[in-house]
Amino acid sequence: MIENETIKHQLNHRSIRQFKPASLSTEQLTTLYEVARQTSTSMFMQQMTILHVTDEKKRAAVREICHQPYVGANGDLLIFIADLHRNQIIRQQAGNDDGRLHTTDIFLQAVEDTVLATQNVLNAVESMGLGGVVLGSIKNDSQKLIEVLDLPQITFPILGLQIGIPDQEPQLKPRLPLSLMAFENDYPKTMPMNLMPDYDRVVNTYYDLRNANQRVDTFTNQINSDKLNQQVTKRDEIVAALHQQGLALDLNV
Amino acid sequence: MIENETIKHQLNHRSIRQFKPASLSTEQLTTLYEVARQTSTSMFMQQMTILHVTDEKKRAAVREICHQPYVGANGDLLIFIADLHRNQIIRQQAGNDDGRLHTTDIFLQAVEDTVLATQNVLNAVESMGLGGVVLGSIKNDSQKLIEVLDLPQITFPILGLQIGIPDQEPQLKPRLPLSLMAFENDYPKTMPMNLMPDYDRVVNTYYDLRNANQRVDTFTNQINSDKLNQQVTKRDEIVAALHQQGLALDLNV
Repeated sequence: MIENETIKHQLNHRSIRQFKPASLSTEQLTTLYEVARQTSTSMFMQQMTILHVTDEKKRAAVREICHQPYVGANGDLLIFIADLHRNQIIRQQAGNDDGRLHTTDIFLQAVEDTVLATQNVLNAVESMGLGGVVLGSIKNDSQKLIEVLDLPQITFPILGLQIGIPDQEPQLKPRLPLSLMAFENDYPKTMPMNLMPDYDRVVNTYYDLRNANQRVDTFTNQINSDKLNQQVTKRDEIVAALHQQGLALDLNV
Repeated sequence: MIENETIKHQLNHRSIRQFKPASLSTEQLTTLYEVARQTSTSMFMQQMTILHVTDEKKRAAVREICHQPYVGANGDLLIFIADLHRNQIIRQQAGNDDGRLHTTDIFLQAVEDTVLATQNVLNAVESMGLGGVVLGSIKNDSQKLIEVLDLPQITFPILGLQIGIPDQEPQLKPRLPLSLMAFENDYPKTMPMNLMPDYDRVVNTYYDLRNANQRVDTFTNQINSDKLNQQVTKRDEIVAALHQQGLALDLNV
């Protein structure tokens, strides 16, 4: 294994969900913004915006959407937004129509810009000795979040990051073996699922070693749980929310 | 600005599109896979797969789709795939139906897993003194790429990475000012577009200093160009390709 400061942090990545009661310094925040700014961007369109949420009312509203007590609590909350609005203004000022801004293609490129920036910022966070957790849960109720943040058309909040000084030292969460997720040339016709029982035992041990009040579970059980079971959920309203924002309007094919 | 080894590389990120004729070592590749493996993953569903394309025929086919001579040439080509197939097998082996695997919600979570891993790997690449470029161009013809890589249902190639030993030293590409892309609490009702002329001049100078045969352009001009102008493109077939892969089937609302 190649070793250096960056990779050391990457191989030791764990999501931090408990932070000391302190906010990031302006210098830290500015550094994170600069890192986000230098992230790769699709076709140099720069379709990403960061919102730093410090207002207590807004933080509480985001927390409620996420159903996670640590969201908008200690530390800092950043919302990463796929943003086609800025480029729309540039086109309008030149007297042009919206062109391809309402296509799924361009929306997905904005999503990619946004998620690349999220991970880049998280790596910077961890390199500073801080910790964080990616919040997909902001999409539990996209329409509500768009109202709370008062976002304009053709913008969409994709991921949050809750970051700060770690106040916990969680175990490294065991991941699927590489032989189930990295391949040369050919995607396997037969996935080596015979590796799953061993992996399930490792996951089970991981949960067993966590706090006594945590569930003890396997990966297989989780994939066969409500995470993926058919159910009615507000998260499926995301398509309606996208359309209401004027995004991915060619989805109806 | 906070300084450390990781951030130094992040603030100096530039896409590398010309590589020395060498492939990564097994140790380098394995390290990158391990980094990908430890990346944050939505709801611990681990819906991402990496394909390392070394077969010359396949590399040529991907290059043709990307219309970029450096793709699948010197260095190594990785394809990052949103992968719901593995979890489908796990559900099938337990006698369960596909549950939510065909929803846009779960597809977007897989996209996020995949893009987070792509950036994480790119950061590891750059920390090793190597370089790379993110390839959104693999989606120029998604259906064709799925055929070339012979991917199963409910998988979808999202981004590529071409990586290797840099054989060029491009200038840092100037990005939008932070005051146009990072905000506290409120997304601006009036975007400070008065900053654009200065930024356009900086971008213009950047292109001017590049090789003489490169275009000299502004950001504003690019946003008002074919990048975003309405046009017929195979990239809009992505929705049909998603549906053909059994993904995001609830898009028709």
